[in-house]
Parts: sequence; structure tokens; C-alpha cells
Amino acid sequence: MTQIPKEVPLYEQERLDDLLTHQLRIIQSDEVFSFSMDAVLLARFASVPKRGRIIDLCTGNGVIPLLLSTRTEAQIEGIEIQPRLANMAQRSVELNYLENRITIREGDLRELVQETGHGAYDALTVNPPYMPLTGGDLKLNPHQAIARHEIHCTLEEVISSSMRLLRTGGKMSMVHKPQRLGEILTLLRQYRLEPKVIRFVHPRAGMEANMVLIEALRDGKPDVRVLPPLIVYEENGEYCKEIFKIYYGSKEGRA
Amino acid sequence: MTQIPKEVPLYEQERLDDLLTHQLRIIQSDEVFSFSMDAVLLARFASVPKRGRIIDLCTGNGVIPLLLSTRTEAQIEGIEIQPRLANMAQRSVELNYLENRITIREGDLRELVQETGHGAYDALTVNPPYMPLTGGDLKLNPHQAIARHEIHCTLEEVISSSMRLLRTGGKMSMVHKPQRLGEILTLLRQYRLEPKVIRFVHPRAGMEANMVLIEALRDGKPDVRVLPPLIVYEENGEYCKEIFKIYYGSKEGRA
Repeated sequence: MTQIPKEVPLYEQERLDDLLTHQLRIIQSDEVFSFSMDAVLLARFASVPKRGRIIDLCTGNGVIPLLLSTRTEAQIEGIEIQPRLANMAQRSVELNYLENRITIREGDLRELVQETGHGAYDALTVNPPYMPLTGGDLKLNPHQAIARHEIHCTLEEVISSSMRLLRTGGKMSMVHKPQRLGEILTLLRQYRLEPKVIRFVHPRAGMEANMVLIEALRDGKPDVRVLPPLIVYEENGEYCKEIFKIYYGSKEGRA
Repeated sequence: MTQIPKEVPLYEQERLDDLLTHQLRIIQSDEVFSFSMDAVLLARFASVPKRGRIIDLCTGNGVIPLLLSTRTEAQIEGIEIQPRLANMAQRSVELNYLENRITIREGDLRELVQETGHGAYDALTVNPPYMPLTGGDLKLNPHQAIARHEIHCTLEEVISSSMRLLRTGGKMSMVHKPQRLGEILTLLRQYRLEPKVIRFVHPRAGMEANMVLIEALRDGKPDVRVLPPLIVYEENGEYCKEIFKIYYGSKEGRA
């Protein structure tokens, strides 16, 4: 069945990009928000239940809910604190006729549990701001600054909120910077989210990791699997096979 | 200068092995203790000061002090709780004419700080028993059981003792199982040993990690580097180049 491409309004400086899989399209803007590889890797890495309820925190322009919708029949929600981005995400959902599968919430992830109650979700994904607020380089516009720096929520707030939102046995999947691995694992364990699966992403085989994918289990027992490294580029500068597979991926999970 | 190979007594079931570098030899025994790749990788991974004082906990037959002696002029000590193994280690030190460089202590690492005082060491290495005492498979002889299971010291005791033995700015290097990564990083940070450098060892490129090398800095700031993965075997079943380099290594560090 082919659908007539839906028309939704595009605002100034916005563009329509192809998500490269399942004919999904997404509204982006270099000034406001455009997704990067982190989000695509997380959407493929994450453990998602076939049914149930999934929440994506810091959803931005909704790239992760859109990609997850190709892998599960679950109800997917995304929450975003910036009205401008939540609106972009909502229009992308409509653009893809996914209103029945994806709900975009505009709001503060720290307050979400008051609305949903504890343990409302079976799975959770998050691509949080990576940088602590150390008064460093903030020469970004406010939209970009909020997406990259811990302005509206710290790592600890993301993790403590995740713990409250997930049911026992629910899985949290996160992408972050390896530099913060010590803090991340300490906080996860402090909030009863036991790290279970970790995968490091290296730009090339001989380079240090520049991303880390982590899956934690609410109330799990300590036992970590470190997956084979994910190498992005071949020696010749082309994407590795696995990256192609992830971008043009099927319903298959991370295995 | 060539030295006349020294004669030391070998006891029943012991053999003399070649350490493959700097003409070092070591006394081993399948019944009591023989080193494996973990120790060799740790001895190469560890940050060692050129001078000063280094301690190797759970030293076994002294393989790590012997290998470290090729990389530094520092005074190296090894501590081992099993008299039989401490004796093996001492004889290997004599065999290599290294009595002036390496001191083997027979004793309990948990009590060492009472003798040396706090912060006595500039660097510390440890290849501890990997398995918690969960009442699992203990079909090993007592020597092997003590080396592999947390019978005489738990992970927490190893880490808390390390904290007390190291000076501020001193470095701890450990090899362990990735399964316990969450516990390890949590305990290190709890005891003011900040994880700084991590390297995962994978048997093959497409397989999960089966060893992890970790360097922590006493009183350091949170900032982790995850080094390129160390792959042990090529597709064809031969050792990778880097493993050859590590085994037949020079004075170079981990590069």
C-alpha cells in the first residue's frame, strides 16, 4: 500500500530529510535541531518490547520514536522540553501518518512521572545532553545549547527519572560519551538500573571510542556484557558494513 | 653482558618457563599456579613510573613484577598470601638475578598498609581473583581456588586496600572480567580511585569482550578514555600483531 505523501507546514530554515528506512521522513533544521549518528545507533541498539509502552526522553525532533516505530508495535511516546522542537516532532509524526503509534509530549521529563505514575513504561530510550554545565563553551544558540548541555536536566536527573518511569524488569537504553562512563555506571547502579549490555563505538579500528551505548535493567543483577566494538569507518574512509545495515536496517535488533 | 644461568631448586611438579622477553625465566606449576595472558596484558598496559615504588597485589608466582622490571627502574614489590606461591615467586626473582629490584612479600594485602603506612606507593597493579564466592564451582585444588575465587579478599577489599596504599596521583592498574564492570567502576569511585583509561580485550573482532584492563587515578577527576579494542586472534586463528608485540615487547608502554 502506498500512501500519498502528506503535506505539513515547514517553517523558516526547516527542511525535510529522508530517514533512509521505511520511507520515513523527518523535519530538521541546522539552526534548531538535526539528528546525528548517535540517535540512529541508539534506535537500533535499544531493546524494545513487541508491545507495551515505550518512552523516549529528550526526544528532540522525534527521530528515535520514528525509527523505533519500524521495530515494534508498542505505543511510543517522546517527551521534549523545547516547544519549538516538540512541535517539529509532532509535525514529523503526522507527516508519516504515525499519530496512532507515536505521541509527542511537550514537557519536563523530571515531572512526567507525576502524570503517568511510577513504573508506567516497559522500555525507555534517551540521548541526553552530553556536556555538564561547567561554564565552558556555550557559543551556541539556545536550542543547540539545551540539546548539548545539561541546562534543563543533569545526568543524575535523567537517570533518577528513568528509574521512576520504568517498571521492574523494564529496560533503559542510552547513548552517551565514554568520557563519562564512570559517572554513568555509578549513577545507574545508585538508582537501581543495573548496567547489562554495553557497546563502544570507535570512529576507526585503531581509535579510542567516541560513543557508548548502554542498556540497563530496572532491578537487575550485576552482570555486564561488552559487545563487539562497533567500528564506523573502514580504512578507506567508507562506512563499515554494519553501519550501512543500521542505517538501512530491517526489523532486526542489535544482533 | 651475559650471565651464567642461575640454578635454583625446583620442587615436584614445577617447571621452568621462558617469559619470552629479556631472557626472563619463571617457575610455574599446573597444580599450583601458572600465569595466563591476563597477567601479560596487564604488565604491558600498566602505567609505571620510571622510578619510585610499585606494588603488585595477588602476585602469584611473581609474573607481573618480573615483566614490569623490564619497563622501569622503580623498586617493585609483590605480595602473595599463599606461602607456596610466594616461595615460587622468590625463587624466580633469584633465578633472574633481580633481588635488588624485586621484593616478594608473603602476607595479606589487607594488612600491608599497617606495615608500609598510607600512600607508600606510586603505582599498583593487581590481577585479583575474578569470581565472587557464590558457592559455585569450587572443584579446584586450594591453590587454584584461592587464585580464582574471592576466598581471601573480595573485590571491595582489593580496591579499598589499593586506595590506602597509593599516594595521591598514584595509579592503579587492574585486569578483570567485563561481567563485573559495573561493580568495579562503582567501587573504584567509592574509594577515590577515578577510572581514567579502559581497554577491552576481545578474543576475535566479532566477539564480546572477555577481559578488561582498567587504570584508575587516586583522587583524579572523572574523565574516561576507552582505548581501541585489543583483539587477540586474527580470522585465521593466529595471534594479532599487537599480541605478538606485547609478548615479545620492548620497554614501550601501551602506546
